[in-house]
Amino acid sequence: MPEWKLSPLPSTLTEALQQRIDQKTKPPGALGTLESIALQVGQIQRTLHPTLRNPAFLVFAGDHGIVESGVSPYPQEVTAQMVLNFLAGGAAINVFCRQHQIRLQVVDAGVKHPLPDHPDLIRRKVCAGTRNFQQEPALTPEEVTTALREGQALVQQAAQQGTNVIGFGEMGIGNTSAAAAIMQRLTGFPLEDCVGRGTGLDDSGLAHKRQVLAAALEQHPDARTPLEVLQTFGGAEMAMMTGALLEAAQQQMLILLDGFIATAAFLVAFRMHPEVRDYTLCCHQSDEQGHRRMLEFLGLTPVLQLDMRLGEGTGAAVAFPLVQSAVLFLNEMASFESAGVSSRDDA
Amino acid sequence: MPEWKLSPLPSTLTEALQQRIDQKTKPPGALGTLESIALQVGQIQRTLHPTLRNPAFLVFAGDHGIVESGVSPYPQEVTAQMVLNFLAGGAAINVFCRQHQIRLQVVDAGVKHPLPDHPDLIRRKVCAGTRNFQQEPALTPEEVTTALREGQALVQQAAQQGTNVIGFGEMGIGNTSAAAAIMQRLTGFPLEDCVGRGTGLDDSGLAHKRQVLAAALEQHPDARTPLEVLQTFGGAEMAMMTGALLEAAQQQMLILLDGFIATAAFLVAFRMHPEVRDYTLCCHQSDEQGHRRMLEFLGLTPVLQLDMRLGEGTGAAVAFPLVQSAVLFLNEMASFESAGVSSRDDA
Repeated sequence: MPEWKLSPLPSTLTEALQQRIDQKTKPPGALGTLESIALQVGQIQRTLHPTLRNPAFLVFAGDHGIVESGVSPYPQEVTAQMVLNFLAGGAAINVFCRQHQIRLQVVDAGVKHPLPDHPDLIRRKVCAGTRNFQQEPALTPEEVTTALREGQALVQQAAQQGTNVIGFGEMGIGNTSAAAAIMQRLTGFPLEDCVGRGTGLDDSGLAHKRQVLAAALEQHPDARTPLEVLQTFGGAEMAMMTGALLEAAQQQMLILLDGFIATAAFLVAFRMHPEVRDYTLCCHQSDEQGHRRMLEFLGLTPVLQLDMRLGEGTGAAVAFPLVQSAVLFLNEMASFESAGVSSRDDA
Repeated sequence: MPEWKLSPLPSTLTEALQQRIDQKTKPPGALGTLESIALQVGQIQRTLHPTLRNPAFLVFAGDHGIVESGVSPYPQEVTAQMVLNFLAGGAAINVFCRQHQIRLQVVDAGVKHPLPDHPDLIRRKVCAGTRNFQQEPALTPEEVTTALREGQALVQQAAQQGTNVIGFGEMGIGNTSAAAAIMQRLTGFPLEDCVGRGTGLDDSGLAHKRQVLAAALEQHPDARTPLEVLQTFGGAEMAMMTGALLEAAQQQMLILLDGFIATAAFLVAFRMHPEVRDYTLCCHQSDEQGHRRMLEFLGLTPVLQLDMRLGEGTGAAVAFPLVQSAVLFLNEMASFESAGVSSRDDA
């Protein structure tokens, strides 16, 4: 089992960073969320002059045995088909990463169907899809350990390439069911608050998904620790994300979080090492039911609410230029003194 | 008086655009607000393949006589000082326009203090600050007409340079008071819903500002039409914005709107020609009290809510990459057919 020892953010620079922000030619606080992002990035990088280097996104793909229980209107083949779409550059996350010059890599964490070789595909298949957690735990303890370690190693590689800002996306038919089960067990919220329509269930599909998940949660009353919950209900892509999230915080990167599934993986990471939250910017609140409550539980405030519900890390990717804006205003705006502008104290 | 004849958006392309959006490799609606932006830009440009060309921002600056009544904690000199800061490239709007390769021009619409020559300063001074509308109308009818015409001409120039997406910012100490008075008179909302802290008033300053505006509104009971209200309470920068907004819609540009003052100018434009709304994307809801209610009144939904309250067009500038994302996904994402991805109907 990989280990992490995360440092909380240092408070030593907070005052100096806030002062630098307040000396810019604007009323105090007038850049709102951009100011809090600038403060966070400065604290994470332990500097008054933060920069964003080699931004990277990893999209983890994996399949879910629970699909056998009829929880998604899409066939399971779509996971592999969408991986091919990522590799061909045709998915939404490709478009947004190209737009912002973010390096995008796709990881086969646990796709059921075989995938061809491709220079942008990182093969780390832990299993060919998980087991159906309505009957048995989705992953074995060994699979979880392997996945955590692979996620850790991928982020270590990114760190060696100079990346200091990273985002994580996912693809996996059925993974909103896995995420909802993890959320229910780790937050204790009523199941109906955790289960949404995923990628387009109708009313009867939603009712069936709730029934399946209620039965599955009853089936596994003893899964209680974060790792047990991850092993019982999670997917290989979620376990790999958990390892990647913890390693990104360990490497003192800024983590761009979005999406219901990624946030469920974050919930596991947070329960293991709460300091991971200090390194995380919640970029977008998904339209998927349950995401808002999970974010409240975690104490995370989303930067964007664009009613998106696609996964792939798309909410984080479209928020990236706002993070750049925050760093740029801190580094490039004039101060009252340098610009010769009167502050309110001169009135 | 300049005249405009605005066309509502054509409905002919709506279905074909929606179909193009729905064939992309994502569940229907999964890109949320980005989908509605893509639809709007396609409709505005009357094409299934919209593009954003030569984005341009105009920041209009003007002073306000109402400042004599003590409604701002900043000295009036700050308007001219901030114009110099814009020209030197040190303000927030400079940083964000540079980031997104948006052409930025600064217009002296009615700054009280003299300004030096500068290649990026467009001199269109209608008055050296407005009159104090606590005693008399802020502008003369001739000043309003001139300002509307100058705003129109500036947007015509931008159109000749190929610009099809435009944003408007403002700078003017005291202009939240002018905007609040315009909002109150044109919406009929209670004054306390329209008046906020502007650039940092404390409680007693806010109470005083409310008193001043209540008395001023009583002073001018007969100003009722949009143009009368603009003339009585507005500023030269707001009148110029009104003309620019109407011309941008006439030129079938996408208008990026944000900010309490710009929205008050938009309110005047909307009351003259409601079709202007079809061409407008509300980019950011300001933290300034009153903006939310004004947007509701106008039926505009903001893309961002980042607690910013700086003006200058900063909310529109930071939202620009999201508009680019919308256009890019429409043009670059693969379709289910082209990518060989099964849609839900294949399940």
